Amino acid sequence: MATLKDVAAESGLTVTTVSRVLNNRGYISEETREKVHAAMKKLNYRPNELARSLSKQSSNTIGVIVPHISHPYFAEMISNIENVASKKGYKILLCNSKGTDQKTREYLEMCTSNRVAAIILFSAGVSVEEFSGSNIPLITVERFLENGTASIECDNLQGGELAAMHLIEKGCSRLLHISGVSESSMPADERAEGFMQICDKRGITHYEVTTNQEQYDREEYYELLEHTLETYPDVDGIFASSDVIAAQTIQVCTRMGIRVPQDVRIVGFDDTRLAALMQPQLTTIHQPIKEMATEAVTLALNAVEGRVIAKRTLLPVTLVERETT
Amino acid sequence: MATLKDVAAESGLTVTTVSRVLNNRGYISEETREKVHAAMKKLNYRPNELARSLSKQSSNTIGVIVPHISHPYFAEMISNIENVASKKGYKILLCNSKGTDQKTREYLEMCTSNRVAAIILFSAGVSVEEFSGSNIPLITVERFLENGTASIECDNLQGGELAAMHLIEKGCSRLLHISGVSESSMPADERAEGFMQICDKRGITHYEVTTNQEQYDREEYYELLEHTLETYPDVDGIFASSDVIAAQTIQVCTRMGIRVPQDVRIVGFDDTRLAALMQPQLTTIHQPIKEMATEAVTLALNAVEGRVIAKRTLLPVTLVERETT
Repeated sequence: MATLKDVAAESGLTVTTVSRVLNNRGYISEETREKVHAAMKKLNYRPNELARSLSKQSSNTIGVIVPHISHPYFAEMISNIENVASKKGYKILLCNSKGTDQKTREYLEMCTSNRVAAIILFSAGVSVEEFSGSNIPLITVERFLENGTASIECDNLQGGELAAMHLIEKGCSRLLHISGVSESSMPADERAEGFMQICDKRGITHYEVTTNQEQYDREEYYELLEHTLETYPDVDGIFASSDVIAAQTIQVCTRMGIRVPQDVRIVGFDDTRLAALMQPQLTTIHQPIKEMATEAVTLALNAVEGRVIAKRTLLPVTLVERETT
Repeated sequence: MATLKDVAAESGLTVTTVSRVLNNRGYISEETREKVHAAMKKLNYRPNELARSLSKQSSNTIGVIVPHISHPYFAEMISNIENVASKKGYKILLCNSKGTDQKTREYLEMCTSNRVAAIILFSAGVSVEEFSGSNIPLITVERFLENGTASIECDNLQGGELAAMHLIEKGCSRLLHISGVSESSMPADERAEGFMQICDKRGITHYEVTTNQEQYDREEYYELLEHTLETYPDVDGIFASSDVIAAQTIQVCTRMGIRVPQDVRIVGFDDTRLAALMQPQLTTIHQPIKEMATEAVTLALNAVEGRVIAKRTLLPVTLVERETT
């Protein structure tokens, strides 16, 4: 790769002059400018961002740590973050923590060593309380950390309430909530809370099924869902804590001869692209993924510039009615 | 952020000595080592990867350019690439080209300026023939570039053949292929070719529908699918060129009262997670996404080390039979 020195040698000018042309600093004659550009083109020179970053002790990079890149929710979040960051001249360093504490800590270290400007952390049950002392802004999404710079959450409590109210309005009288993983306290737990509060207030019978650990072994998870539906045969409304769980529930219902929405109505959570691709299309709680991603990048960059930013940001959710209810 | 100098000052040692401790070079007494580690801990010092990268004129980073991060196929590819790269000590700089020539070129420039070790490019109809002159290995996936370092493709021709043979075996006699975008010549075009070759050989009536441009406006795309099914009411077997298109086709069939698989059998392409989450579950051509991702990273890193690598790699596909056939 050609360096600044090579360009100087090729154009017969000093490194200082070439640097002035590149940075558009001071008076430079048109002839000099042309000489430099011709040499750059000939040598296929590209400015070295590493050198710039090193002199600033920070790179125009945002570290993004997610538990599962290919999960539709995180894939859409990453896509939106990349889009907003790119418009502001920032790059994305993508890290997959697989939801483990150890990988998350490793990636936090790696991001720090690489002098990222900021870190956006999506954490599924990890404790990163020990991440501190670095002056890199840490924005957490769907998780509040005492020592984080800022957190962004959607209104999970409201989401649970909306799901329960919708199912009750549709005439359901025996409700079931199928939650995701809950090993440590997470904002997502409030989905269950909001759901149950409404059920209690309206005197509606309700059950809850919790998964102990992430169930990647799909068949095992299907068995759990089947067992649940056998245990509560009178259930006529289900609130699943993600669109993926809702999709799996619809499949199990179909296998068991339970019709959706005639016998059981189903509401999901997230409103990923998957919700609209299912058959029947899924009624779900819409997380403002785009707005959350925009907010995460904006807060991160404001923090980089030393501005005072909101410690907690809570965004509203809405219910999108489709065919499963 | 604490620097090497700060650690030296704090421990009362020279920068050279601190550097020797960090790099484990030469003889260092236990006492000195402990002093340095204590100072590092106190100052929360982290080694500066930017400085290391600059001195090597390359970072342990692979630039990954995809057209759509949140599309399930690319999301799974990215996830697998990150996983393999991470095990080899490499980071991922993620870029979303949105399938445009301009963004792709911008990102190729950006990756070059940031001295990534290698670039993995997923290109949907872009021409990057002008990318050359840089000594950064360029690995393309599902696209062959004359001036690229290497390309990885799955056997799209075989995929189309397998889809046609399967539908014919299941008793279908009037077949339809719904292809994706095809503005420029792409390996994916061979899916249609393989499909039609088998139909011609077996004397099976077949139709093809091509989309002129990416149809993000979902409703418009549904209208196109509906119109197609109305135009060819006698079709009893459909080969969709992606799982997403297959999912949309199933939805349109349901709306039109066409039962899957009783009236129409459907085969997709990709075998993303979506295929197993649909109802009915999708029969599809399995792309070896994990193997393709592993191969892309392996070829990239072998090229970085200056080894001779395969110019073209073709991986086989298989048919996964599920409920839509």
